[in-house]
Amino acid sequence: MDISVAAAAAVHTLVERRQTAATAESLTGGLVAATIVEIPGVSAVYRGGLVVYATELKARLAGVPEGLLAERGPVDGDVAAALAEGARERCGADWGLATTGVAGPEPQDGKPVGLVFVAVAGPSGTRVRELKLDGNREAVRTESVTAVLQLLIDCLRDSPAPA
Amino acid sequence: MDISVAAAAAVHTLVERRQTAATAESLTGGLVAATIVEIPGVSAVYRGGLVVYATELKARLAGVPEGLLAERGPVDGDVAAALAEGARERCGADWGLATTGVAGPEPQDGKPVGLVFVAVAGPSGTRVRELKLDGNREAVRTESVTAVLQLLIDCLRDSPAPA
Repeated sequence: MDISVAAAAAVHTLVERRQTAATAESLTGGLVAATIVEIPGVSAVYRGGLVVYATELKARLAGVPEGLLAERGPVDGDVAAALAEGARERCGADWGLATTGVAGPEPQDGKPVGLVFVAVAGPSGTRVRELKLDGNREAVRTESVTAVLQLLIDCLRDSPAPA
Repeated sequence: MDISVAAAAAVHTLVERRQTAATAESLTGGLVAATIVEIPGVSAVYRGGLVVYATELKARLAGVPEGLLAERGPVDGDVAAALAEGARERCGADWGLATTGVAGPEPQDGKPVGLVFVAVAGPSGTRVRELKLDGNREAVRTESVTAVLQLLIDCLRDSPAPA
């Protein structure tokens, strides 16, 4: 799915359901947020987000447990889940979206380029997807944005609409 | 100045000076951060940031005084300054960059489309620039990103390098 199509589909579903979203981004560095805010009508559903590029900010801004970061490093599925939950809570949104991974060109903390975890936290739990992406920094980032938007679309589809 | 050229110039100067930056973005919604993280070598100098699209998050995430927001609304020079100072403080960076303004297509709180304030907070104070931009949402956003990066470049040029 194209990145703008995914963003439009996610935003339109949120508008229909009158639900809100927030973001916490590591390797995408604001690109999930910037992609979402391009969609007309977004101000009713997008609250804002956290760009947690430095590892320390994952704890400080998004509330990821420091012990988890110390044990696993920032590129980890449980860290992605904690980021999504932190975005949801700290920004006061129904849904939290998160990305963490290795954009390259160098591996990071022993994790290969293209290893990415995306997560979505919602009213009834958190889902994580592990991705193994090819391509340069820009391609890895763009695919990561599309993947977290796709995961949100899947979570919205599988979640009952609020009464 | 082109947006990528401005980002590269800002990042390279920060790398040379071993100083760090953080962002707090309203109308640009993550685009300042996403532009900065495209520059190779950025991880040494970019800490992260706040996307404060909803007005309430300008207070909650970036510490903008609620009274100031209530009195002036979010599109204001002093709000831009407080956002830049909040980014600097909450992300633990030497420099904080902020944007707030009206991307359109509709005016907001009585402020015209294209009215934008960008601010940079640094070790010796905060500078704000008021912009009156033409064009569609995308053009207003892109020009706002370039303007805040240019303001950072100017502040770095006018500020003594750390010993």
